[in-house]
Amino acid sequence: MNAKKIPDIIIGRLPVYLRALQHMADAGLKTTSSQELGEHVGISAAQIRKDISQFGEFGKQGTGYSIQFLIDKLREILKIDRIWDVVVIGAGDLGHALAHYNGFENRGFRVVAIFDNDKNKVGQTIGDFTVEDSATMSERIKSLGVKIAMITVPASAAQDVTDKLVQAGIKSILNYAPVNVTVPNSVKVQYSDPATNLQRMTYYL
Amino acid sequence: MNAKKIPDIIIGRLPVYLRALQHMADAGLKTTSSQELGEHVGISAAQIRKDISQFGEFGKQGTGYSIQFLIDKLREILKIDRIWDVVVIGAGDLGHALAHYNGFENRGFRVVAIFDNDKNKVGQTIGDFTVEDSATMSERIKSLGVKIAMITVPASAAQDVTDKLVQAGIKSILNYAPVNVTVPNSVKVQYSDPATNLQRMTYYL
Repeated sequence: MNAKKIPDIIIGRLPVYLRALQHMADAGLKTTSSQELGEHVGISAAQIRKDISQFGEFGKQGTGYSIQFLIDKLREILKIDRIWDVVVIGAGDLGHALAHYNGFENRGFRVVAIFDNDKNKVGQTIGDFTVEDSATMSERIKSLGVKIAMITVPASAAQDVTDKLVQAGIKSILNYAPVNVTVPNSVKVQYSDPATNLQRMTYYL
Repeated sequence: MNAKKIPDIIIGRLPVYLRALQHMADAGLKTTSSQELGEHVGISAAQIRKDISQFGEFGKQGTGYSIQFLIDKLREILKIDRIWDVVVIGAGDLGHALAHYNGFENRGFRVVAIFDNDKNKVGQTIGDFTVEDSATMSERIKSLGVKIAMITVPASAAQDVTDKLVQAGIKSILNYAPVNVTVPNSVKVQYSDPATNLQRMTYYL
């Protein structure tokens, strides 16, 4: 299925479709159309049909998409028809929020460890986790075989932490520090900072 | 400048360009090219040129873009050449993180109030803020004239909170609850949930 290179921009939209489809499924709906899905996510029906057609023929002309079938297919395409282990770096407010986050359930991920370099935080309990010393981070990531990390450290520490994660074998980084980091081509970074998200809406005010 | 309708998808990319440009400016760079910017953000140079040309002629053939000029223009287009007041709903870990967040500085926003419906949290101090009772939320938002809210309540409460915010005059919502909410056409919602962000990367693993 990965033989054909799918543009990053399309891959980026699939999780948004998936969340909306899951919302419909939870509400008891069985089928949907590109029009209806488009209204949910704010993307044109034509774009949605084009995006989904990249992966094969999922809908039938006139009858729309089976929601559960599309959910299953998207999960398979995005490789979240399994559970990925994730580490959290930084045990501040946001690290706590991520360790407690219950939105990972059934969505392909589970947090397995949280690290901090503050000796006062190391050993603290957060839900089911004990904060581990950042000094042991590389070794732990290698022994756990984890490929995904979420960074919640201050901006000034983000690049250094990123370098260490990459060396330890991390391939996907969700960076909450409000700063761009440099990684090799083989590593993907997603940014999540509230200012960037808010800036996407002020244009319309 | 808003006479021509700019596609939402382009508006959504501008804050990403802005963050990368600010990163370059902070590093002391003066000019950049669509190629260089593209490498920073993972978007093709052609797409970047096309996006930016929607707003006018900002670059010169052969000499590239002045970074500071482009930053100023993007801030003007996105209407963040001013400071917008923002309220936070929900004083859990994530609400704390947002109230403490120092990444809003110089990026167009400031948090002005935080609300919770838990009587044990109301009155608590978070940095410069005192957690206010959600019962007073609508009135406070109206009297402050705030247009932007960040929601960090549990998924089950998100729609109810959203409805109240919309009634109070909120026009932009950044929703951290991992659930789609329904709003009138006049209101914009951005979603930020870690599972969706992580799902954008597993395809490449």
